[in-house]
This record gives sequence, structure tokens and C-alpha cells, in this order.
Amino acid sequence: MGHEWCSTRRRSAPVDEFSALGSEALQALREELRKDYAHFQDRGLKLDLTRGKPSAEQLDFSNELLGLPGAQDFKAADGTDTRNYGGLHGLPELREIFSPLLQVPVDQLLASDNSSLSLMHDLVMHAMLFALPGGETRWVDVQRPAFLCPVPGYDRHFSICEKFGIEMIPVEPTEDGLLDIDEVERLAASDPRIKGIWLVPKYSNPTGVTVSDRTAERLAGMTTAAPDFRIFWDDAYSVHHLTDHRVTVAPIVQLCAEAGKADRVFVLGSTSKITFAGAGVSFLGSSPANLQWYLGHIAKRTIGPDKTNHLRHVRFLQDSEGVQKLMERHRDNLAPKFAKVQEILAAELGGTGVASWTEAFGGYFISLDVLDGTASEVIRLAKEAGIALTPAGSTYPYGKDPRDRNIRLAPSFPPVADLDTAMRGVVLCVKLAAVEKLLEG
Amino acid sequence: MGHEWCSTRRRSAPVDEFSALGSEALQALREELRKDYAHFQDRGLKLDLTRGKPSAEQLDFSNELLGLPGAQDFKAADGTDTRNYGGLHGLPELREIFSPLLQVPVDQLLASDNSSLSLMHDLVMHAMLFALPGGETRWVDVQRPAFLCPVPGYDRHFSICEKFGIEMIPVEPTEDGLLDIDEVERLAASDPRIKGIWLVPKYSNPTGVTVSDRTAERLAGMTTAAPDFRIFWDDAYSVHHLTDHRVTVAPIVQLCAEAGKADRVFVLGSTSKITFAGAGVSFLGSSPANLQWYLGHIAKRTIGPDKTNHLRHVRFLQDSEGVQKLMERHRDNLAPKFAKVQEILAAELGGTGVASWTEAFGGYFISLDVLDGTASEVIRLAKEAGIALTPAGSTYPYGKDPRDRNIRLAPSFPPVADLDTAMRGVVLCVKLAAVEKLLEG
Repeated sequence: MGHEWCSTRRRSAPVDEFSALGSEALQALREELRKDYAHFQDRGLKLDLTRGKPSAEQLDFSNELLGLPGAQDFKAADGTDTRNYGGLHGLPELREIFSPLLQVPVDQLLASDNSSLSLMHDLVMHAMLFALPGGETRWVDVQRPAFLCPVPGYDRHFSICEKFGIEMIPVEPTEDGLLDIDEVERLAASDPRIKGIWLVPKYSNPTGVTVSDRTAERLAGMTTAAPDFRIFWDDAYSVHHLTDHRVTVAPIVQLCAEAGKADRVFVLGSTSKITFAGAGVSFLGSSPANLQWYLGHIAKRTIGPDKTNHLRHVRFLQDSEGVQKLMERHRDNLAPKFAKVQEILAAELGGTGVASWTEAFGGYFISLDVLDGTASEVIRLAKEAGIALTPAGSTYPYGKDPRDRNIRLAPSFPPVADLDTAMRGVVLCVKLAAVEKLLEG
Repeated sequence: MGHEWCSTRRRSAPVDEFSALGSEALQALREELRKDYAHFQDRGLKLDLTRGKPSAEQLDFSNELLGLPGAQDFKAADGTDTRNYGGLHGLPELREIFSPLLQVPVDQLLASDNSSLSLMHDLVMHAMLFALPGGETRWVDVQRPAFLCPVPGYDRHFSICEKFGIEMIPVEPTEDGLLDIDEVERLAASDPRIKGIWLVPKYSNPTGVTVSDRTAERLAGMTTAAPDFRIFWDDAYSVHHLTDHRVTVAPIVQLCAEAGKADRVFVLGSTSKITFAGAGVSFLGSSPANLQWYLGHIAKRTIGPDKTNHLRHVRFLQDSEGVQKLMERHRDNLAPKFAKVQEILAAELGGTGVASWTEAFGGYFISLDVLDGTASEVIRLAKEAGIALTPAGSTYPYGKDPRDRNIRLAPSFPPVADLDTAMRGVVLCVKLAAVEKLLEG
């Protein structure tokens, strides 16, 4: 089973049912859908599918953390008093737990505070003001620095680029929905302004796709016009499986080192979707030179991360296997929600020819492509029926989806019953918007 | 009792005993001191007076935090689930506790993560890349931006300036050891490059001096050449009293607003020396426009601070009075240590004419001035006798004390017995370095 195939499956509609309908049949369908929509609207719902937030039930799995490490427990394994200043690298025993999961040697892995987004932001912000190892200038002195942005992608990555005036160059997926590595290689080699690429290598946000071993090798070894090109390898869903098949990605830190390009990659991770969202711990893995650069700068910012939270997580998770066991509870909770969404999408949109969607092996999202030019309208209709969806275009740089068709569905937060209701509303909106569009054209 | 006077007292030596000695007597004294020093060195000690770290005993006062908020306690007063994403301002009930202590209205006070140093760093870093309210350019486009740095001061403030290439302009204290507000006014008005001033307004690091009400008014109202001048009001020791006399400072946010210069000040605070150092919570208070600027930028960095740590602190501290009560325990622990240092300094250096030092009403430090040109030598001698002192010059910008005389003593961390030993070593080094110097000259 190849990695490319197994990482995501796209349910294309086999029959173009809607477009095969005559004008009269379409009009009749529109009337029917308008009635259904009006009824749905009358229910006065308030449902939210916007963000990849864990549900209260998922957070409950880690409630033990709220009483840990316990009133007399504050010494780390090496005798460090976690209540006092210091320890810029983070607690060694926490880094040991996550080293195999993130595939970064423990001495090249830092443990930090409650947000990997903050780490990514700070890396970019520091690169703006201080030349990276291998770089000749700070990015603030580059005329229009740029990043490659595989689309659809994660809006918070794009917000960082936008904040710092870094031009975003979208990279569309291949026909199979995979990272277009040919295009990435071509672009990275073409222009020294191009300083980096955002990637969620496993169970990506939002398509659930995983970078294959061969693609990872090419990313690690490719020629880049910028000497300070960096892969922001946001391994946000490293252990977030939804099936028995635990998808793996290649150990990118090792691949880059083997390719003689050790400084090429920053690996990011966090426990926001393992323990508590916003009260967990985060990780940065990279080459010794990159870490020295980062630590040198960050040492002026902080005397160290919150080590009691590190210890709290060590006591709770215990070891790498403890993390995997906890993730099985998440999977048991999430898999039925994802299945519910798939079931409704297949039953209601299968064969209509007006939608396709991903079925991921892990992660937090389903990426739904509706009829071109109707995503904004679907989101508007859903909103007016009390269902909040991620704003149209948010999976694209600058919020601009050129085909206005992508919608990110986040099934984790609502209870299954609400999710069922919300999805029945969503598919109704998808169909109604499609029929209106077809009748227009 | 005026604020100026009560905030610090400097024990000048009344008699210049050493310099009154003839060459022969000095030589005899040198021999004696060399012998004492050799004996001291033979003890093979390892003591540390470098940093303002709380002791293990002090940290024990907050051990209850290690088991809080408790396994089923995660809801904030407004129903927020602290385990999930969101809440950029920080938990309202935590901000309410610290609002009166930092003298910032609660709706102008943010609660953040484990480090006020990080807040200061991020404010400066963002000002480098994004024009502040009232500012015409970002600081990175200013030819040599500069900050006023009252000396002796806090080395970590200076490190932030150095990191970003912000020129530091030292401001020497008045003869009474107070902030030279005349000079600050003169400099701030003289040059639009001057973008800010570092201040620890109460029980300052390292001299223990407090800004008087009148000086605060002048800071709030003064004319500055830069439209985006900012006071970094680092209220690190707002409740860190060492005597019954709880020194107060003026409410600077209010003063600035009243002076029509609401955007002039950033107030910083943290619980690093209230609960746990590096595992506490931090605060930023400022004008609505400044906070909007900051939150707008920081929203791309984080989805919110660690709210479970906020709740943990709320449960433990309960209210403002709870903070004051906790600080009394710290005072009971620290006051004997500070008294011990004062006792040894007075007994051993009083009347020698080769040292003067501060006696603070609060805070974490004693600022010791030794004979001009001998501070580095004292620190070297101490090091060779196993006593670590803060590096020479560290209380000055660029680590350069022009008179090579200031030493920051941090009595909090060692147990009293160790402190006694260390201080006996320090005074010996002070005397020996002085006698050698006097014999040279």
C-alpha cells in the first residue's frame, strides 16, 4: 500500500446527476430544495463547524492533568526544581516522550509553552529581523520575500505570512489531491525571494493528505534559489489517527541532514489536540545550527518555558505509548463523528456531481469541494440557517479561493446529534446553491 | 514622609578610614586581608548570589498550585472551558485580582503566559516591525532608534535593546540615588530617535528606589520628540514589600490618560516572584489603542494564553488580599536575609570609605558600590573563592559600568547560613580589592 494512496481518498461523484437534468426538472428540484431549506431555517439552530476544536468529551480524557503534578511533586528527573527559573530547552523527560513521535532526536528537540503557532510565528518574526543560518540577509531587507503555500491549507499559517508582508504563492495539488512536488521544486529553484513552504505533512489541514516518503526526500534534497529556504513542517496531527492504519511520514530532520541540508527544516508539534487546547505543551525540532540561532534569540525573550506544565504532562502521559493510548480514546470519540459526516455526504451528495470530498485517515478535517463558484453562497445559506462554517476562502492565501469551491468541515466539536443536524443542513445548502447556479448558467 | 526619601536609603561611610591610612598601615592591612582571603578560598565553597531567584522555601508557599485547579475544575466564572482554545485577553477573574495591585483598570489589563519579559520583548519586537499608535514609522526604519536606560538597571531590559540594535542612553541617578527626571525630560524632548525608557517604578532592580508621585506625573506629561515614545513601566515588585511601610507608586495609566498622553505607557507585571518563577502568569496594562495594536498583532501568534494556569492562580490566590497575604510570607522569609546582608555590610564595610550600598524597602536586590575601578576585581576574587556574583557591568547598558564600581547582590536564593558565609567572603574581597587599588595609586 503506497503512502500516497493510503493517506486520503476522494469520493468523486460517479454520475453527474444534477447537470444531466433538464431545465424543468432542475426548477422542480429548486422548489423542493427551497422548501426544505425554509423548513430547516425555521428550526432556529445554532451550530458550529468552524474550527478544529476538541470537544468537551475529548478534553475530559485529560482531566487528570488539572490535579497534577500534585502538591509535593515539582522535581524533574535531573533534580531541577520546575517551580523556578531556567531551562530554555524544556524538560528532558518531556522531550524524550515526544522525540519518537515527532521523529526528532531528543537533543534536537525543544519543549516550549502552550502553542506551536507561537513557535512558527516567532521563527518567521525572528527571520524577518535576523538572518537565518545560511542566509545572507534578514528577510525584512528582501524585496518581497515569499512562501510557497500548498492549497487548500491552514489559514493561521497564511495569517503569519500576511502579517509580515510575505507574499504567498499558492501551490495547487495534483489531480490526485497530493502535494505537487514537481511544482514545488520548480518554484523553489526559480527565485531567491522564495524563503519557505508551509506543510502539514500528515493528515493535512484540511485535506487529510500525507506527504509520501519520496516527496519528503525530494523536499529535503531539492535545490532552492534561496540559501535560507525553510520547510515549516507543522506535524500537528502526528498521532491523530482515525483508523487502524497509523499513517507514517518520513523522518524529515534525518532526511535533510542526509541530503546535506540539515538546516532546511523546522519541525513543529503540540499537545493542543492531545491534552488541552491552549494549555498543552509545544515542540520545535531542527538542526543544531538552527536551534542555536533560535535559542540565542529567544534567550532575550524568556528565562525558560513553563516547566511545571512540562512536568504535569510527563506525569500524565508517562511515555510515548501513553500518548498513543490517549490518542486511541480520541479516535474512539472522533471516528463516529467523521463517519457520520461521510455517511451524510455520501447519501445526500453522492452521484449529484456537485460535490467531492476527502476521507482522511486522521487529523481534524474534511475538505469539501462544492460546485465552482458556490462555496461563498453555501456558507452564506448555512449561516442564515444557524450553521457556522469556516469563512469562504479561508483555506487559501489572502482568503481568496480562485474557484470559490472549498469548504473546510470540522466535525470534532459538536456532539454527534448536532453534527448530524448541521450536516443535513450543509448538504441542503450545497444542493440548493448548485441548482441555483446551474439554472443561472 | 516624601516618597523619594522613603523608597531607599544609602549608607554612606561616614569616615574615609582606608584612604586615611598611611602606606605602611595599608600594606599591613593588605597582608592580613590576603591571609584571610587565602583561608576563605581554602574552604572550597560554592555559593551563588547572582540572580533574583526565589528560594525553595519561598516556592513552597505556593505548592498548593501544583494540585490546582483540581480534576473536575475547569470552568471560568463566565462559563468558559479553560481547557479549550480562545480568550486572548486572559481570564477576567484573574485580571480583576491584579487590576488594583498594578493600578490598571481591568478592561485595560491583559493576563498572559509565564513571563512579563516575553511581553516586553514582544512589544519591542512588534514596534520594530509595525508602527505604534501615534508613530509614523516602524522602528526598523528609524536610523538608530534609542532608549533611555536609568542606571544601574536591569540587565534583561538592556539585552532586549541590544538584540534589536536599539541604542541605549544611560541616565545616571541624582546624588540622592533617584531617577534624574530633569535629564530624562531633557533627553526625551531632544531627539525623535529616543523611543522609550525602561523603568522599574517600585523597589527598582537593583537600587530599590521608587519613582515619586511628582516624577511619575512629569513622566506622564513630558514633551517627547518622538510621537511614539513609550514608558516600559516594569512593575515587577509591586507587592514585594520588605517592611511595614508598603511603598506606593502613582497610577501611571491614569496619569498618562489625564495628561492627554494615554498611549505613552506599557505596564508590565508577573507572578514570577509571587507564585512560581517561570510558571506563573503575566500582565500587560495600557491604553485601549495600545492594546488594540498589540492584540491585533498577537492574534496571529496565539489563539490565547494558558487559561488553566490562569484558573489555577485564581483558585490559589482568590483575591487581591490573598496576594498581599502571600507576600507577607515572602517578606517574613526574605527580610531576615536582607537584614543579614545589611548587618555584614555595616559591620565590615561601615566606615571604611570604600563602599556604599542601598537598603531597600522592597524588591529583590541590594546595590553595592565599591571603590571605583574595583568591581570587576571584587567579582573575580569572589569567583575564585567559590562565590558567584552577577558579572561586572551587568547593571549597565552593554555591560559597561563606566566607573567599574556597581555590584548587584541578590540575597533571596541561598539559605541564611550560606548567605552569611557568602557575604563574609564578599566584604573580604571588597576590602582586599580596595587596598590593592589604593596601594597602586
